Amino acid sequence: MAEKTFMGKDFLLSNKTSKKLYHEAAELVPILDYHCHINPREIAEDRRFANITQLWLGGDHYKWRLMRSAGVDEHFITGTASDKEKFLKWAKVLGQAIGNPLYHWSHLELRKYFNYQGILNEDTAEEVWELCNKRLREPDMSARGIIKQSNVTLICTTDDPVDDLIWHKIIKEDKTFSVQVLPAWRPDRAMNIEKSNFLDYIDTLSAVSNMDIKSFNDLKKALKIRMDFFASRGCKVSDHGLEYMMYVPASEDEVEAVFTKRLSGKKLTEKEVLEFKTAFMLFVGREYSNRNWVMQLHYGCKRDNNGEMFSKLGPDTGFDCINNYTPSAQLTDFLNALAKNDTLPKTIIYSLNPNDNQAIGTIIGCFQDSSAVGKIQQGSAWWFNDNKAGMIEQMTSLASLGNLSGFIGMLTDSRSFLSYTRHDYFRRILCDMFGRWVEDGEYPEDYVTLNKIVTNISYNNAVKYFDFNLSRYE
Amino acid sequence: MAEKTFMGKDFLLSNKTSKKLYHEAAELVPILDYHCHINPREIAEDRRFANITQLWLGGDHYKWRLMRSAGVDEHFITGTASDKEKFLKWAKVLGQAIGNPLYHWSHLELRKYFNYQGILNEDTAEEVWELCNKRLREPDMSARGIIKQSNVTLICTTDDPVDDLIWHKIIKEDKTFSVQVLPAWRPDRAMNIEKSNFLDYIDTLSAVSNMDIKSFNDLKKALKIRMDFFASRGCKVSDHGLEYMMYVPASEDEVEAVFTKRLSGKKLTEKEVLEFKTAFMLFVGREYSNRNWVMQLHYGCKRDNNGEMFSKLGPDTGFDCINNYTPSAQLTDFLNALAKNDTLPKTIIYSLNPNDNQAIGTIIGCFQDSSAVGKIQQGSAWWFNDNKAGMIEQMTSLASLGNLSGFIGMLTDSRSFLSYTRHDYFRRILCDMFGRWVEDGEYPEDYVTLNKIVTNISYNNAVKYFDFNLSRYE
Amino acid sequence: MAEKTFMGKDFLLSNKTSKKLYHEAAELVPILDYHCHINPREIAEDRRFANITQLWLGGDHYKWRLMRSAGVDEHFITGTASDKEKFLKWAKVLGQAIGNPLYHWSHLELRKYFNYQGILNEDTAEEVWELCNKRLREPDMSARGIIKQSNVTLICTTDDPVDDLIWHKIIKEDKTFSVQVLPAWRPDRAMNIEKSNFLDYIDTLSAVSNMDIKSFNDLKKALKIRMDFFASRGCKVSDHGLEYMMYVPASEDEVEAVFTKRLSGKKLTEKEVLEFKTAFMLFVGREYSNRNWVMQLHYGCKRDNNGEMFSKLGPDTGFDCINNYTPSAQLTDFLNALAKNDTLPKTIIYSLNPNDNQAIGTIIGCFQDSSAVGKIQQGSAWWFNDNKAGMIEQMTSLASLGNLSGFIGMLTDSRSFLSYTRHDYFRRILCDMFGRWVEDGEYPEDYVTLNKIVTNISYNNAVKYFDFNLSRYE
Repeated sequence: MAEKTFMGKDFLLSNKTSKKLYHEAAELVPILDYHCHINPREIAEDRRFANITQLWLGGDHYKWRLMRSAGVDEHFITGTASDKEKFLKWAKVLGQAIGNPLYHWSHLELRKYFNYQGILNEDTAEEVWELCNKRLREPDMSARGIIKQSNVTLICTTDDPVDDLIWHKIIKEDKTFSVQVLPAWRPDRAMNIEKSNFLDYIDTLSAVSNMDIKSFNDLKKALKIRMDFFASRGCKVSDHGLEYMMYVPASEDEVEAVFTKRLSGKKLTEKEVLEFKTAFMLFVGREYSNRNWVMQLHYGCKRDNNGEMFSKLGPDTGFDCINNYTPSAQLTDFLNALAKNDTLPKTIIYSLNPNDNQAIGTIIGCFQDSSAVGKIQQGSAWWFNDNKAGMIEQMTSLASLGNLSGFIGMLTDSRSFLSYTRHDYFRRILCDMFGRWVEDGEYPEDYVTLNKIVTNISYNNAVKYFDFNLSRYE
Repeated sequence: MAEKTFMGKDFLLSNKTSKKLYHEAAELVPILDYHCHINPREIAEDRRFANITQLWLGGDHYKWRLMRSAGVDEHFITGTASDKEKFLKWAKVLGQAIGNPLYHWSHLELRKYFNYQGILNEDTAEEVWELCNKRLREPDMSARGIIKQSNVTLICTTDDPVDDLIWHKIIKEDKTFSVQVLPAWRPDRAMNIEKSNFLDYIDTLSAVSNMDIKSFNDLKKALKIRMDFFASRGCKVSDHGLEYMMYVPASEDEVEAVFTKRLSGKKLTEKEVLEFKTAFMLFVGREYSNRNWVMQLHYGCKRDNNGEMFSKLGPDTGFDCINNYTPSAQLTDFLNALAKNDTLPKTIIYSLNPNDNQAIGTIIGCFQDSSAVGKIQQGSAWWFNDNKAGMIEQMTSLASLGNLSGFIGMLTDSRSFLSYTRHDYFRRILCDMFGRWVEDGEYPEDYVTLNKIVTNISYNNAVKYFDFNLSRYE
Repeated sequence: MAEKTFMGKDFLLSNKTSKKLYHEAAELVPILDYHCHINPREIAEDRRFANITQLWLGGDHYKWRLMRSAGVDEHFITGTASDKEKFLKWAKVLGQAIGNPLYHWSHLELRKYFNYQGILNEDTAEEVWELCNKRLREPDMSARGIIKQSNVTLICTTDDPVDDLIWHKIIKEDKTFSVQVLPAWRPDRAMNIEKSNFLDYIDTLSAVSNMDIKSFNDLKKALKIRMDFFASRGCKVSDHGLEYMMYVPASEDEVEAVFTKRLSGKKLTEKEVLEFKTAFMLFVGREYSNRNWVMQLHYGCKRDNNGEMFSKLGPDTGFDCINNYTPSAQLTDFLNALAKNDTLPKTIIYSLNPNDNQAIGTIIGCFQDSSAVGKIQQGSAWWFNDNKAGMIEQMTSLASLGNLSGFIGMLTDSRSFLSYTRHDYFRRILCDMFGRWVEDGEYPEDYVTLNKIVTNISYNNAVKYFDFNLSRYE
């Protein structure tokens, strides 16, 4: 018999201290999901799921990638196979996915939401299919039901400036549902001047903000109108998806000239694109600072790499990868340009390239000040790094180079309502790190301080950092 | 007394599960060495070795580097010192080489092939010298004898397109030796248009393929003739050595112009070189796809860095290093260009830069399809990474980002007949990873599945992937 | 109760072998601090410290960064708050700094120099403040007293070519203090031709070397005069701080033209700057080789990133970061250019970017020869990497790729007299690595060899490598 049974109650907790910290602190703390890709409409309408495939395989490109890697035909992934056929293929692939975070995530979800303590693989697929679908018919397994049983207090979705945020309004006005669902501002389409649909987007933004957009200055005005609207809906966070954080400064006139050139339908040079984007990011950064919004920078991703599949399935379908061109010098110079006039907002930096951990750990230390604890944060291990090894590396680096106890911790970044178990996963890993340090004599066995740090990283730091209308958990 | 004695039968196996997996599965499985640099002539002629220096230090630049790092004079490395003097110097250096994979490899070889259970160092050097040389005089210590006792079923050598593959033919026709020895296609010299000997090479290729080569189109025809010949000798694998995977596309006319310029003796620009190489790689990639050959890409290496020593000793003598310019974007775009017309062959990607592990892990996931399990593979930890830490990192990354259970596993990449113990080393590390996961409750204690995955990674996956004429091991 | 109490006598030593190696060897060996930033005047004058804030927080930008990251106002860091207020803020931040090397360093210093076995945090701050200040009044807590009780035999400071080295002379002539305090040559200001104060610096150098500097040739002559002077004061080591190791070769005439252009007050292009710096580094490299000096290359650092804070506090105040542009190809070509004419000096390579570990490990192997054991060294984990994870990674990489037993080991790189405990920290980590390998059966339990390797890395290798006038420790 192995020392520990698979995924028991002390899963990932290797010693007494880590168990104590998890079960007496981390496990009890609510969840604040400050960044995800959940569709607010599904919360507003309290969506139900006909079967586990809809919930698990409907839009989860993590799972799709793994199936493709295991040689499964696209017919059973995004094709016209039945939901049950897709599930059976998935179960077979998962059964062999040793070492993959999906193995853990899936079983955590089966345990927490479906009360299934067994193992999902080719042999048990039929049984699990039945069991899950039966459970999904129970009343508490709607979108809202899942959120409630997950002990979530607040969710930030990810929204385009042109969005009318109607679903956020409906949710807020519904007194039967007390979880806060706030919009987050993601203006990528307004920044991606090189994209073919940029001019169409500008037209839409112009209509929504009720003003002409003939210049970069107009664009800025329109965006401010939309930011005001987002703020009125409770927005406190922005988000940016970037190949890398660029810094190619140009004069106002030069940037206006680039914008005009693009409006006239001409193709921009690489340098012009970077100049525009730099100016754009400096503008929004200053606005975030004015509004006390948090700026999230997600970079190091090269998207839609398989042209064939992109033309069939569109974006966010499992064809993105890590970009290893992520110049730390430009990131630093960008932050400095904002700091120069005291217009650097609270900022969270996520790179998809795990090699950037240490560079980021040292860069954030150059721009801290007393306006917030950990004003500049390194975001939790993102996407491809959101696994045990990735989280340990990010937190070890952050602890070595900065103030881990001020870390704002985990988020789901997910499209699925079952992903709250990732907070559980994160907290177990966090508690185990701490437990090891204590057991090894590297930190004192001081449970008052340790519990406080664990609770803060799990919840309270984020409450304070984002200035949400929530109480601290004590 | 230390908990475990040095390199006992449970070497590198830290728990019950890992021991069980190794001794009941991995250890029993034959070896398929799908990539090495063994000279097929030595197999054909069944070479014997006069002493251990010839076998160990004759051409092993790993060992030469370590000796130079320890301050040994070149006289005792590649110089005119006697074989015994060289061995004594090596033994002294090895005795202090704590933490170096050569320490493990050498002792694994001493145990397996020479039945020496002791420790090689300055004090035991004389004894080991005698013992090894005595053993080398026994009949089963010829090249073929070593291969047979290593339980090898198939070897792919590494061969130039102009090679006549005569030794492969002789080996195949010799009914006394049943191990398959197949050629692998490595056309680096046909691609390296910037090298001073390129035109000479084109002349040789022209002669061997019996046609004029006056254009890139001619070159492609000649290469196809040679590919047909290699295929007739059983070739199923190609290999490329690259500083980095470039993607600088150009029109057919532009590439022809570059080739013509080079034929006229003029020096090419950097851009022209990259355009030619891109076109070359796209051409061969498509050919591999047509022929169902596997494309191996080895990149991230800067070779022959010590000009002084290169002029004395030539290539592959221990003066190569990791190149940290390995743009993931170009690699991705290259694969996409092949995928666009469904001409992307099965591909194995190896970077010498271990920082590329995660980027590669995400890139391969963008190009998988159902034509093979793990159609695009991340190759096993290569060269400077072929050690315990490097293998654990490569496999942890691969497991986290993809489907480790479809991994085609280990190869020797070696010039030596004793290197089959590296498969043993790899399998112990693999079994120990799995054992730890099981003991820690991160994967179920399901020996049927675990044994299957271990056996597949050790052997069966490669049999199937390369489509070799071999049976699965059950 | 945790398995081990916090920071007991077996701190960081996880098994019997590691304990034995540390307590029976490493712990007893003296300290040779071949690179630090201590002010020699403070040794000459035998400085005393009025309180622990002066000693700990006076110029320690590591601590300042951590305080800023925890949201402490600059008033309590570099501002006008009282020393006691600063200490209380520091104590509070430290108490929560789980996983940060400062937590360990600070407690090691409290234990070793202040005999305080407790924990420093918000609650104990008053007590520790009193205790430390009382201890600081004891006679052996002057600069020299601390050095003596730390078992230090030799210190290399870091000095500008124009320095008169008067304090080194005074220390040497003082027969009451037997620790060698030698200058090290750091000519960054003479190389940084793009800096605004370059011409002023040239004037100073001209005055000090008593000759006109009108050309690069003159500059070289002046530097040689200063090198002769440094050599007369016992200098054997140089040091360079570089963003990255550049290699952009140019002809002598071209470099002279760049220098003349700069003298005339014109702004240089990026390429010109790199050409000058390349020529400068080739020149000094050859001079070091002639003089048998060691060349230290510290690169991968982007300095003074927060312009606002730089204008207030100047350099070395906690606003530097890792630069991830560190082209390994240029480093290699630079070393090769020196090796070509056998003018490559003994060289120690430190990159601030931990991703460079493996590239460096393979580059140094290309330039070793028998003129020294480990002629080209990878420096110990530097600055932001000088923590447990960073040291383990650097040594694991070095061991895997080269000859760890020839490693010259640890240095403090510090401005503080209490930092000698970092040697203790390093040796514990080293002994624990070795102990684990032995306990796991990866290296024989041969204490004679192990003790020798540990002692050599801790001390003897450096004695021999730098050719200091010191005896080996046996």
